[in-house]
Amino acid sequence: MPYVNIKVTGGSEAPSAEQKAELIREVTDVLVRVLGKNPATTTVIIEEIPMDNWGMGGETTTVRRRKAAAQKTS
Amino acid sequence: MPYVNIKVTGGSEAPSAEQKAELIREVTDVLVRVLGKNPATTTVIIEEIPMDNWGMGGETTTVRRRKAAAQKTS
Amino acid sequence: MPYVNIKVTGGSEAPSAEQKAELIREVTDVLVRVLGKNPATTTVIIEEIPMDNWGMGGETTTVRRRKAAAQKTS
Amino acid sequence: MPYVNIKVTGGSEAPSAEQKAELIREVTDVLVRVLGKNPATTTVIIEEIPMDNWGMGGETTTVRRRKAAAQKTS
Amino acid sequence: MPYVNIKVTGGSEAPSAEQKAELIREVTDVLVRVLGKNPATTTVIIEEIPMDNWGMGGETTTVRRRKAAAQKTS
Amino acid sequence: MPYVNIKVTGGSEAPSAEQKAELIREVTDVLVRVLGKNPATTTVIIEEIPMDNWGMGGETTTVRRRKAAAQKTS
Repeated sequence: MPYVNIKVTGGSEAPSAEQKAELIREVTDVLVRVLGKNPATTTVIIEEIPMDNWGMGGETTTVRRRKAAAQKTS
Repeated sequence: MPYVNIKVTGGSEAPSAEQKAELIREVTDVLVRVLGKNPATTTVIIEEIPMDNWGMGGETTTVRRRKAAAQKTS
Repeated sequence: MPYVNIKVTGGSEAPSAEQKAELIREVTDVLVRVLGKNPATTTVIIEEIPMDNWGMGGETTTVRRRKAAAQKTS
Repeated sequence: MPYVNIKVTGGSEAPSAEQKAELIREVTDVLVRVLGKNPATTTVIIEEIPMDNWGMGGETTTVRRRKAAAQKTS
Repeated sequence: MPYVNIKVTGGSEAPSAEQKAELIREVTDVLVRVLGKNPATTTVIIEEIPMDNWGMGGETTTVRRRKAAAQKTS
Repeated sequence: MPYVNIKVTGGSEAPSAEQKAELIREVTDVLVRVLGKNPATTTVIIEEIPMDNWGMGGETTTVRRRKAAAQKTS
């Protein structure tokens, strides 16, 4: 009966339909294997968050990715 | 002061504006009737989740709906 | 297949087991009636939040309740 | 290590990219200043909710805004 | 940078500290393997929900477990 | 009308009542200042997550804190 909510960055980093299907299958498997949960009532929801809306270290992911790219090329 | 978050499948299963208004009104009524909450400060948020992003039983809703449809026509 | 998360104040305002059962039953009914959802796969989770942890108008509920009580008796 | 989820109305009320960046920076600062948290591991996610999907007082924000506008002009 | 929130039933069904550590490790692994995410910034939060607060099919888990147990012994 | 949910580690790292009140006041102020939101309808909820239930980098916070402490004393 577990409920799992997964938030990942969307936009150019959005997972494909195949990746989402695999993510749902594998996370459900973990719940079954580790906690003995019933897969039939296990819900997994994936939410894709735009990079301007996801902050870490006080900066948006848009800025973080730009800085990381600049660092690589410099 | 309650806060209610409702997640439903979107896409072709997305609720209409009328259904969302009714859902908000009725869920607020339940909070008032059952718990005596103040409707003025009761928040209800509806989130529509794409069918590829909602898994149950280890499968996406896209796959689940396709299988259910196949079963019906066979 | 909807997922509903209801947050209410806990502590001295926590709902009883009977109220929680009724809340779950009635909110599930609303989802069935308004959106035609399948009750068997409708999940409702209630979370009780301590009054010091719930703020509105920039104040904790603890402070808000104290002020409301003071206003009543004055 | 805190995790902050901020839901605001979207559509015509959606914050700009600049406002979202400022919101992330300032909320992270509050966590650092008030709780001494490490900004590097502080996550802030902003979710924009359509006005038909956000209810308060049993009404959608769409309806609430229309009523507020009508009251102003009458 | 993904954020994962897992809700499971608590009380007599609460996972042990070992199970929680394994759940966190394995779910993080899935995010790395399927989506190529950075484990260092992957957050997994487990929330344990009392059985009276978790409803499915319009009934609390407390009632569902009691019915399932009754069915087994009859 | 924004809704803010803040998750922090609890147990020995739990914020005091004063810190929670300050956090609620300051985060509400940020929403007012940056987005021009109405404080009266701004909700801030703080959730305290046990350290065994919060994972980052594939490890529980319990383990992460122990390792950090060992590194300091060695």
